[in-house]
Amino acid sequence: MKNMTSLGLKHESGKLWALDQQRLPHEEQWVHSKTPKDMAELIKRLGVRGAPLIGVAAAVALARFSEDGASTDELIAAAKMLREARPTAVNLMAAVDRVVLSQPREKLTTANIVRAAEEMFDEDVALCDAMARHGEPLINDGDNVLTHCNTGGLATVGIGTALGVIRRAHEKGKRIHVWVDETRPLLQGARLTAWELKKLGIPHTLICDNMAAMLMKQGKVQKIFVGSDRIARNGDAANKIGTYSVAVLAHHHKIPFYVVAPYTTVDEACPTGAEIPIEERASDEVRRDFSPRDVAVFNPAFDVTPREIITKLVLDRGLM
Amino acid sequence: MKNMTSLGLKHESGKLWALDQQRLPHEEQWVHSKTPKDMAELIKRLGVRGAPLIGVAAAVALARFSEDGASTDELIAAAKMLREARPTAVNLMAAVDRVVLSQPREKLTTANIVRAAEEMFDEDVALCDAMARHGEPLINDGDNVLTHCNTGGLATVGIGTALGVIRRAHEKGKRIHVWVDETRPLLQGARLTAWELKKLGIPHTLICDNMAAMLMKQGKVQKIFVGSDRIARNGDAANKIGTYSVAVLAHHHKIPFYVVAPYTTVDEACPTGAEIPIEERASDEVRRDFSPRDVAVFNPAFDVTPREIITKLVLDRGLM
Repeated sequence: MKNMTSLGLKHESGKLWALDQQRLPHEEQWVHSKTPKDMAELIKRLGVRGAPLIGVAAAVALARFSEDGASTDELIAAAKMLREARPTAVNLMAAVDRVVLSQPREKLTTANIVRAAEEMFDEDVALCDAMARHGEPLINDGDNVLTHCNTGGLATVGIGTALGVIRRAHEKGKRIHVWVDETRPLLQGARLTAWELKKLGIPHTLICDNMAAMLMKQGKVQKIFVGSDRIARNGDAANKIGTYSVAVLAHHHKIPFYVVAPYTTVDEACPTGAEIPIEERASDEVRRDFSPRDVAVFNPAFDVTPREIITKLVLDRGLM
Repeated sequence: MKNMTSLGLKHESGKLWALDQQRLPHEEQWVHSKTPKDMAELIKRLGVRGAPLIGVAAAVALARFSEDGASTDELIAAAKMLREARPTAVNLMAAVDRVVLSQPREKLTTANIVRAAEEMFDEDVALCDAMARHGEPLINDGDNVLTHCNTGGLATVGIGTALGVIRRAHEKGKRIHVWVDETRPLLQGARLTAWELKKLGIPHTLICDNMAAMLMKQGKVQKIFVGSDRIARNGDAANKIGTYSVAVLAHHHKIPFYVVAPYTTVDEACPTGAEIPIEERASDEVRRDFSPRDVAVFNPAFDVTPREIITKLVLDRGLM
């Protein structure tokens, strides 16, 4: 498999590495993923996260496994394990199916698997560019743009989905400022988006999730861009918990709300948002060390925003 | 001054003590407040917080100071210092004015100041009872009630404002369950409300602030009760940051949203919410140790909810 590098994933001289996103922004530690099991663990604990990235990472991990001499049965077992690592982002399932599980057994040669993984990597870069091209004109010079979670170079192997659109507007010389939702409980905004925006030199300010409404009321938010983990056939979009909250607030304040995603996030087999499985994660992600140790917690990792309150879907093939 | 005890403040044998709320729930540490300066520091760093409580605490601290031999000039200077400790909750200003600053100089005897402080303490207990009496009938058996920040025995010297209403419904035998917003950045919900509800034996579940919308959409929230730090003459209510967000979400989902407060929170001199000063606090409250160390932060401690999206104000004198 060829060498491939992104902000959070790299394949170099036959070794696969992932930047451990749980340690950002204070430590930039690359972890060697020797086997699909290593990658599945990284994905489960959000060392590797972002719907497009986990799809590509799983594909590349399977190709690496095949080059390392895995048998067809081992490959299929590894693919099934990776497919189960997280339930909501459809990109993961689509990627694993495309590279291994939906292929006839006789097609599961190393050459085929490697080619499919390389294609997926390159395609994700191109999809990010296409989304940025379609989304960038929606941003005006002087806009304050609000975003939730992380949807940039860390969430994809390209420039990102929602954050890619924002980046492209900045690169085109538009003077923009980004409000970064911290995104509880795992703080992907505070940890990852702030880190990416700093690297890119894009002006930004961190807020707690519950401050967005006040800013909207004060006229300090002109556009909202978020990503998605799965878009149902009717356009309902699952994304990081808190996205639906932002969408309702945007609707109330008449602020355009855009969901940016590649076709790999669209699940044609899923009729509406009601059918999207929502992962519930461990209570300690919310409790941390500040709450009573035995307090009951509800910790859904995602919520679903109905199509009616999404202004436009910004897809790689255009606005919808 | 007589002995007086509440969940977070006590005057015993001539000494004034405050439970350091910044150390809850893991440490229950009572701090000796020897002077008004000690109390002002406690209030500034939110060791003592909650609009009604900081009013009473300031009054009692001034009475203690007078009994300890402060001159009239020293008393007036201390009163002015306490009045400035925090800008949003009007209870603090009203209490300091009532006990010292709006009194003619010749009335500033120890006996008068002590009587006024004792009256304010006892009155706050009675006000909480009155709010609970008016608010309790709004809760039905089986309701899931959502609350934000902490408005219980820790925020007052009685049973609380919003949490007092909830407590009374539980005591009357209604089977209720409370969704506790963690309330970023200082986590008064996760630290204090969860701690109080556990002590009271009221079933509750902790959530991140950005999860409330999803629960509302799923029909899992029947009523919302919050407190207030200042209510303008037109009924607009300032409260802990994130309250306005909850109010908009409640409005969208057609869920009743109640603000519970005593008359000491109503500021007749303030025409609308636009005139309420909003305290901005230190960036590190939001940044903590997980964000890039130099990231810009917006950290307003309060927001304002317009009267139009408040279902009812639950005051000590009745519903409004």
